[in-house]
Amino acid sequence: MSDQVKYLLEESEMPTAWYNVQADFATPLPPVINPGTGQPIGPQDMAPLFPMDIIMQEASVGPYAAQYIDIPEEVFEIYRLWRPTPLMRARRLEKALDTPAHIYYKYEGASPVGSHKPNTAVPQAYYNKRAGTKRLATETGAGQWGSSVAFAAGYFGLEAKVYMVNISYQQKPYRRMMMEAYGATIVASPSKDTAAGRKFLAENPNHPGSLGIAISEAMEDTVTTPDTKYSIGSVFNHVLLHQTIIGEEALKQMEKADEYPDIVIGCAGGGSNLGGIILPFVRGKLKDGKTTRLIAVEPTAAPSLTKGVYTYDFGDTAQTTPLVKMYTLGSAFIPAPIHAGGLRYHGMSPIICKLYDEGVVEAVAVAQNPVFAAAVQFTRTEGIIPAPESAHAIRAAIDEALKAKESGEKKVILFNLSGHGHFDMAGYRSYFAGELEDYEYPAEEVHKAIAGLPKVNA
Amino acid sequence: MSDQVKYLLEESEMPTAWYNVQADFATPLPPVINPGTGQPIGPQDMAPLFPMDIIMQEASVGPYAAQYIDIPEEVFEIYRLWRPTPLMRARRLEKALDTPAHIYYKYEGASPVGSHKPNTAVPQAYYNKRAGTKRLATETGAGQWGSSVAFAAGYFGLEAKVYMVNISYQQKPYRRMMMEAYGATIVASPSKDTAAGRKFLAENPNHPGSLGIAISEAMEDTVTTPDTKYSIGSVFNHVLLHQTIIGEEALKQMEKADEYPDIVIGCAGGGSNLGGIILPFVRGKLKDGKTTRLIAVEPTAAPSLTKGVYTYDFGDTAQTTPLVKMYTLGSAFIPAPIHAGGLRYHGMSPIICKLYDEGVVEAVAVAQNPVFAAAVQFTRTEGIIPAPESAHAIRAAIDEALKAKESGEKKVILFNLSGHGHFDMAGYRSYFAGELEDYEYPAEEVHKAIAGLPKVNA
Repeated sequence: MSDQVKYLLEESEMPTAWYNVQADFATPLPPVINPGTGQPIGPQDMAPLFPMDIIMQEASVGPYAAQYIDIPEEVFEIYRLWRPTPLMRARRLEKALDTPAHIYYKYEGASPVGSHKPNTAVPQAYYNKRAGTKRLATETGAGQWGSSVAFAAGYFGLEAKVYMVNISYQQKPYRRMMMEAYGATIVASPSKDTAAGRKFLAENPNHPGSLGIAISEAMEDTVTTPDTKYSIGSVFNHVLLHQTIIGEEALKQMEKADEYPDIVIGCAGGGSNLGGIILPFVRGKLKDGKTTRLIAVEPTAAPSLTKGVYTYDFGDTAQTTPLVKMYTLGSAFIPAPIHAGGLRYHGMSPIICKLYDEGVVEAVAVAQNPVFAAAVQFTRTEGIIPAPESAHAIRAAIDEALKAKESGEKKVILFNLSGHGHFDMAGYRSYFAGELEDYEYPAEEVHKAIAGLPKVNA
Repeated sequence: MSDQVKYLLEESEMPTAWYNVQADFATPLPPVINPGTGQPIGPQDMAPLFPMDIIMQEASVGPYAAQYIDIPEEVFEIYRLWRPTPLMRARRLEKALDTPAHIYYKYEGASPVGSHKPNTAVPQAYYNKRAGTKRLATETGAGQWGSSVAFAAGYFGLEAKVYMVNISYQQKPYRRMMMEAYGATIVASPSKDTAAGRKFLAENPNHPGSLGIAISEAMEDTVTTPDTKYSIGSVFNHVLLHQTIIGEEALKQMEKADEYPDIVIGCAGGGSNLGGIILPFVRGKLKDGKTTRLIAVEPTAAPSLTKGVYTYDFGDTAQTTPLVKMYTLGSAFIPAPIHAGGLRYHGMSPIICKLYDEGVVEAVAVAQNPVFAAAVQFTRTEGIIPAPESAHAIRAAIDEALKAKESGEKKVILFNLSGHGHFDMAGYRSYFAGELEDYEYPAEEVHKAIAGLPKVNA
């Protein structure tokens, strides 16, 4: 038998708890602020949107202040459909790079919808079901998140209404059909179904929509429809909590490989797949004296960590959410239309931002063409076509492996391959045709964009 | 912990050999006939197309006449990327059907290209590499097989040229991009690259193409280009041999579930995924006195087993191949454009045909709308969107489970979920829109279609 390339876990070895990194913080996260009063918001302020379990996980309070949160059995049972996911050693990529580095990747693309997103959609649907919610409302851009909510809602007999950004609704009918196959109701956003949507449609009957508008519609739907709650796919603390199943599994699998990573890498849009893979290794740094480098990889088109400012901003473009302290490019900023749609966000998870601010996590920004070059090299060596988002992590992993070659060091690199690219072949087509632009977002634009934000003394 | 739904194998438990059903036949397969001489063809006749290992596997001779054929280590190593695949118990589907039946499915959709096809593409590329082949030529319809050859060829450093049916080339750019991402060269068929292609283009510059024409082009390319061999995705004995890894794994996993199937089901186009799942259970019937029912599910639009005639026919529409004894609808027959493109074939694997003729295997034909209804029910209970081809097996599994409910018997049903439907959402769209036709192919047409075939005394 040749060298091992795949590290599985037995079901009996599968982690049974999520890791709550907030329990290990020396200082708490900055409070979330009500823009009207300037005061921190409390649990009751979030009750119209989320069930109480989710709110308490978000705030890390009560039973959810613990370091580990047991995964409910009903959630675990659904996780088992595709989890534990494999950890792979990328031996053919190592050979192609002629590097002494050992490259490992955690593959989340074999889930029923093709990405890591169901890791949080399932517990969100579960806690809602338990709280008596009958219906979920959410927004989606290209459709990864909407598909995950449709999948999870179906499992718990919840209705799901998905506001899908109009331009994607028109251009990506397959993702839309996927959500319908799962039984969800999909509408192009802006839609006639909400006051916010009607306002934008009145301005422009062919409005292309935006994630910001879709969020506004889903939130309005939630607060105006009985028995309905809101479901979100990234940024929030409870989302990152649920995603830690990725890193907890990876930790155990690295043990089987008899190695511990020197570098852990994830792509960063809102921070959910990044948090999922790195937070258990953050614990190693905060509590066990490990010196692992943890790298967030963002697109140069939306470089919130590397070029943003750490300040209070709204979570959505329509500026209707509470104010959150994060690295931001300004909530009014609309990132360039890169193919990694999941990374087109002006802000970043507050947990990731705090860790970045404190130097626990580092960040790098990469441009679209080098990202697709890495995606194609990975495809031709490892055989899996990555999602453009995940390819950002591959780019950074290859770059680190090449540095290791130069320095002659045997670095152990782990990255999160958060999804497959079977729905993203249009991006590959544009890359092969030489049509991709390498967007750069200049730092001076950021300062203009954040100049008008409300001032918060927190 | 609730009831188990997933049965994994350890890598150490993975079968290390394919099962050669020909070794257990009481009488050999009818010979393949040269249409020019009326005589059986020999190994040398196939040498321009295939390397000698493949030819000997096809004929079950020499070291390849054994009951079990060791999987070469180089192939096993690549299998490990996605194998062993999971065996799942469809408990939620059982509950929705309110059936006493136990329904299991073997899931092949988590392979890098999304189906069972790489199980044979990889060993074909391996044996070619070992024989000094530098380049593979093949045809593809919707692109599943072409993607698998592109994937496998890349692993062994072989060039790959894929002749893709023009209408699919135009309508399915994503599959095409997928093959290009793997490094293959794709051309719309009919193409200017072969004499056969140029002939069809001269007749019609916008020729939509057909699988028959694409086969003719790939075979012409093979015999006219140095160091090139031909690769095929179904029908042939060596293809079914390689696919038996599916059923061999399933046998071990059913043991872990402490059950043995009463019924094993696969969809049937050329017979490769069907053979893959059922042949190890055929062994149980032929050698161990088992009474398992083995069911081939074909579309009513191409019902080769249920309405075809067991006679000698050509393998391709252009009638350029040797003559093979099989259940056929007539090689000139072009099946209606159902969404299960992989099942649109006029004939059937000779191994499956012999087993059907001898009553070891039974067959049923199902129409398109009931198939999609089963696909949607499966999606909404089990969470995986099936390929339309695989959904034929689901339809039959559900029908058998409902019969078990009626009779009150606890039947154990196993079916092969050969691929996911992420590339087939257009079919779901048509289904939801009520646009699908339930094509029926009348038996009298078959008799007309086969009337003109050459007579063979074998």
